[in-house]
Amino acid sequence: MENKKNVWLDADPGIDDAAAFAVLIAYRDRLNICGISSVAGNQSSDRVTANALKLTEFLGAADIPVVRGAAGPLLREPADAGDVHGTSGLGNCVLPEPKKELAAENGLLYMRDVILALPKGEQITIMAIGPLTNIALLIKTFPEVKERIERIVLMGGAAVGGNVTPTAEFNIWEDPEAAKIVFDAGIPIVMCGLDVTHLCGLTREQVDGLLESGGRVQRALGEMLKFYFESPAYQNSDRVYIHDATTALYLVHPEIFGGHMRRVDVDCSEGMNRGMTVCDMRCYDDDGVSCVGNVLVLDQADPVVYQKLLLEAFASFDRDE
Amino acid sequence: MENKKNVWLDADPGIDDAAAFAVLIAYRDRLNICGISSVAGNQSSDRVTANALKLTEFLGAADIPVVRGAAGPLLREPADAGDVHGTSGLGNCVLPEPKKELAAENGLLYMRDVILALPKGEQITIMAIGPLTNIALLIKTFPEVKERIERIVLMGGAAVGGNVTPTAEFNIWEDPEAAKIVFDAGIPIVMCGLDVTHLCGLTREQVDGLLESGGRVQRALGEMLKFYFESPAYQNSDRVYIHDATTALYLVHPEIFGGHMRRVDVDCSEGMNRGMTVCDMRCYDDDGVSCVGNVLVLDQADPVVYQKLLLEAFASFDRDE
Amino acid sequence: MENKKNVWLDADPGIDDAAAFAVLIAYRDRLNICGISSVAGNQSSDRVTANALKLTEFLGAADIPVVRGAAGPLLREPADAGDVHGTSGLGNCVLPEPKKELAAENGLLYMRDVILALPKGEQITIMAIGPLTNIALLIKTFPEVKERIERIVLMGGAAVGGNVTPTAEFNIWEDPEAAKIVFDAGIPIVMCGLDVTHLCGLTREQVDGLLESGGRVQRALGEMLKFYFESPAYQNSDRVYIHDATTALYLVHPEIFGGHMRRVDVDCSEGMNRGMTVCDMRCYDDDGVSCVGNVLVLDQADPVVYQKLLLEAFASFDRDE
Amino acid sequence: MENKKNVWLDADPGIDDAAAFAVLIAYRDRLNICGISSVAGNQSSDRVTANALKLTEFLGAADIPVVRGAAGPLLREPADAGDVHGTSGLGNCVLPEPKKELAAENGLLYMRDVILALPKGEQITIMAIGPLTNIALLIKTFPEVKERIERIVLMGGAAVGGNVTPTAEFNIWEDPEAAKIVFDAGIPIVMCGLDVTHLCGLTREQVDGLLESGGRVQRALGEMLKFYFESPAYQNSDRVYIHDATTALYLVHPEIFGGHMRRVDVDCSEGMNRGMTVCDMRCYDDDGVSCVGNVLVLDQADPVVYQKLLLEAFASFDRDE
Repeated sequence: MENKKNVWLDADPGIDDAAAFAVLIAYRDRLNICGISSVAGNQSSDRVTANALKLTEFLGAADIPVVRGAAGPLLREPADAGDVHGTSGLGNCVLPEPKKELAAENGLLYMRDVILALPKGEQITIMAIGPLTNIALLIKTFPEVKERIERIVLMGGAAVGGNVTPTAEFNIWEDPEAAKIVFDAGIPIVMCGLDVTHLCGLTREQVDGLLESGGRVQRALGEMLKFYFESPAYQNSDRVYIHDATTALYLVHPEIFGGHMRRVDVDCSEGMNRGMTVCDMRCYDDDGVSCVGNVLVLDQADPVVYQKLLLEAFASFDRDE
Repeated sequence: MENKKNVWLDADPGIDDAAAFAVLIAYRDRLNICGISSVAGNQSSDRVTANALKLTEFLGAADIPVVRGAAGPLLREPADAGDVHGTSGLGNCVLPEPKKELAAENGLLYMRDVILALPKGEQITIMAIGPLTNIALLIKTFPEVKERIERIVLMGGAAVGGNVTPTAEFNIWEDPEAAKIVFDAGIPIVMCGLDVTHLCGLTREQVDGLLESGGRVQRALGEMLKFYFESPAYQNSDRVYIHDATTALYLVHPEIFGGHMRRVDVDCSEGMNRGMTVCDMRCYDDDGVSCVGNVLVLDQADPVVYQKLLLEAFASFDRDE
Repeated sequence: MENKKNVWLDADPGIDDAAAFAVLIAYRDRLNICGISSVAGNQSSDRVTANALKLTEFLGAADIPVVRGAAGPLLREPADAGDVHGTSGLGNCVLPEPKKELAAENGLLYMRDVILALPKGEQITIMAIGPLTNIALLIKTFPEVKERIERIVLMGGAAVGGNVTPTAEFNIWEDPEAAKIVFDAGIPIVMCGLDVTHLCGLTREQVDGLLESGGRVQRALGEMLKFYFESPAYQNSDRVYIHDATTALYLVHPEIFGGHMRRVDVDCSEGMNRGMTVCDMRCYDDDGVSCVGNVLVLDQADPVVYQKLLLEAFASFDRDE
Repeated sequence: MENKKNVWLDADPGIDDAAAFAVLIAYRDRLNICGISSVAGNQSSDRVTANALKLTEFLGAADIPVVRGAAGPLLREPADAGDVHGTSGLGNCVLPEPKKELAAENGLLYMRDVILALPKGEQITIMAIGPLTNIALLIKTFPEVKERIERIVLMGGAAVGGNVTPTAEFNIWEDPEAAKIVFDAGIPIVMCGLDVTHLCGLTREQVDGLLESGGRVQRALGEMLKFYFESPAYQNSDRVYIHDATTALYLVHPEIFGGHMRRVDVDCSEGMNRGMTVCDMRCYDDDGVSCVGNVLVLDQADPVVYQKLLLEAFASFDRDE
């Protein structure tokens, strides 16, 4: 349909990635989801790739092509987040084995071909909710795709604070060099980082509600999210943050979010701030003139509407069944 | 007098240092100012040392011993802030040449002797409003003074943001290794950084009021502060922040400030965040237990009472004349 | 011909690259030169790409496909070596404009296709004599090529010393992250660094001899090499080192070189040793057992035979005309 | 005696430090050993301080003042070398408990006083064979001593290679910031690093000879040196290197050593080369003019005369008894 927005999803599923899949697929009437690439991050390449296949089938979107991307960061050994997402990457939730297969042998080449095959004049939004390894390689190896990318909406970083370290968020910390390549590429970027994802959460009651809903999809998502509450970070918390789903919701409901254009750089040093997204909050540069930002850093959200929209998206799957 | 609080002032005057001198000296009925050491920072060692001598005399406190401290950071060449504080360090204000001389040849040794000569059972507060070079050397060379130091109240750093770079404040950035030594020393620390000093300012009208007051000291301070408005950082600002004076005011009026205990570390890498005071804002550690901070990070202030107290302190000098 | 060794040449021509082109093309009876990719380094992407086209034609090898690779390092802005290689990259030598065109739009994709199209069971040697940007992207984006790469013979680094900095050689320093990716890839590597290229030089007399030879190719190479003597590094030297030509000669005459297997890593920090190839010369690891190296580090050569073979290769072009 | 050379010894004994003590004390007719300061390094401050007291008494030099210096590096927690020097720091050798006490409470202050109390016109050589923490603090806290220091002869670093890491030697690696302060101080420095200490060793037979000598001191030193052969580094070696004793021998027999003036800097980054002494081996600077070195880097020695002189020094103690 002509007015649908072209979207490529790059993900490392992951519990909150699963919720993001659900949001995007719930809105397929507005989005042309051209494909999904996996990237090692929350779990190993094998597991996140399997999860991407399983999730699309489970959510009734087996027709969306899935490909495998990078097996680890550009420079270092992968360090997964199994403590947060569980061994499978989806907490204790067990999804059926997928029937579909990967759409291509080389995921990055497939991604490039899809982008270049867009109808003349059309562009695509890349939604990246894992480490930015794939996007960095895509841009560097195939610079011809850059003019076809409308923008990159990514979950990662923070203007203030971190989760893996005091100043670094997991997706950026896992591959800072890839992040720097992406932030420096000259493509418009929306950074949906901890500043905004920590404003948007579901309560324990809402997660319990999913589990008790009786719906197939809501129950599965509830099982996954329940797993979060067991990790140390959430031990004393009455709500869970579903970072990737927040990013997905931004794509379809940007009106409930707000942000600022900032100059953002990535710390790729070996120091204690490795992986920090350094956002210059000073409103002047060396000449006393206002800085021009390269990134729209989201830092505002309506948390109540967020909950409503998110739960509706989840419920939409079970309503149709 | 027995109930006076012992204080040593370590400074790199500097315009806002001058205002801090005024605050401390205005409160001499409550403070036993045991001495002042200079440290290269806002200007060269020669200039800040001369300024310390001039200021104490100008403010009627020629009896306070002044000594010269470090001529530059531990590891690097000094990089002054002449663009902000002017060539003399005191903007366009010209103070009379001092008659007094330095109290000792070796400032750090004098400082150690003063601290060890405190009456048995007494401790001292070190107020450090320049780079922390002197304090680091004092602690490392004379570890016997540590138990006599009640706490270090310092102007420097920030939990969020910076001024010299996006994430580093000048005093810490100028000598990060010294700052790390001080933060790791096990001595109680109050960090009066940009988080709180940016809450406390004087308006252009208030600075003009100082200039028009007719008072000798107020006029001099007004001249200095006026100079700030010429630097790029204040070009579009309707108020100036007087970082060191805010720190001095904390010493005598802590009740108008608030803060949090945080785990603070200093980035000594060669990366883009060199000189950042890294404050862990996460309320759990690896075991899910709350972190214990090593630093009281000030982040709240009553800006109206601040202005009132500061202007009263400045005015007190001219009232007595 | 069935016994020819498959070779891909990745280069940033550059004066010594030009000499390397001459060596490889002189030995085409033994080498199947499958293609040449340009990489920004000694000069900008536009200039090194033009030079690659010109050189192949000038050396009678217009049939070798030439493609354009990366326009700069993975993470930083390109920093050329125009002070050593001149504005054109070929000193004062002016070669005819090329008639041929690039073999493909995307050089890395072409390179991948050529490698995968090799007859079953055959492998290819990659000879990389510029920054390793292209090779890093090739390996990371197309991991399927790795098993078809027999080895990478590269000009770069040093076990001891550097040229751009005290410890870094230009090709590695220009893109340390790319170098680290290549060294960590698990592909056999021969490092032809300064340890061996500084053993192999041509004298001023030999360079003058090229200029006076009357031969078209020798004269052109003589003009280029003469340019080297004008750079500060060679001011007091009686010989020039032709790093890339030494690497090319290793490919066809390995018997005049020697080396050691070493554990080699690349310093990607922001410190003073950024770009250093760190070779562990200690013959034990933490358990007292001998280390196993990942790189054959060349450190021996027969400089007299080197001169003879190199001058013969150069002369072979003019003999045929 | 008027022609004796004034020497201060800063050490972290340590097996090879013990041998250095023996060399210096054996040559007391030529050296005025003004005092000895301990520094945490090979072992903890408590252990190396105790060892310094024990060694001076054991070697019949109880009159040499011993003081305690820094308890750890400037910035980091101490990391001892107990794996090489044993729990006591002296291998399996047990020396008698000392009767003497420390000469002062604050070692650095004592050191400063001794230096400033030198007869007018005299200077002192500092021989530093541990981490450079004390020397850095001395220079920074008491800059008035600098003009009284003739030179610093130090064991540490290397122009090529390392022992703790591929590129860092233990003494420098343990406190790189201190080393940088010392190297940048403008005081003449002789660097007796691994380049030269690895040229000078005793064989297993020679060590056995010490054990079998019947002499009290030789036997003790033999016991200590025997311990070295048990560490992984010496497992396959037929000789031990006695770094600090080599440095001590340079002081009294410089004629058997050779070296070059080099520009030397210290890597204080967080990267893999932290603690490396970066020696610029290039013989030109940016303007093509020869570099002027700040350090005499020793890299030549006569290993046979070395052995003879060292064993004679050891034997001299037992001959007198």
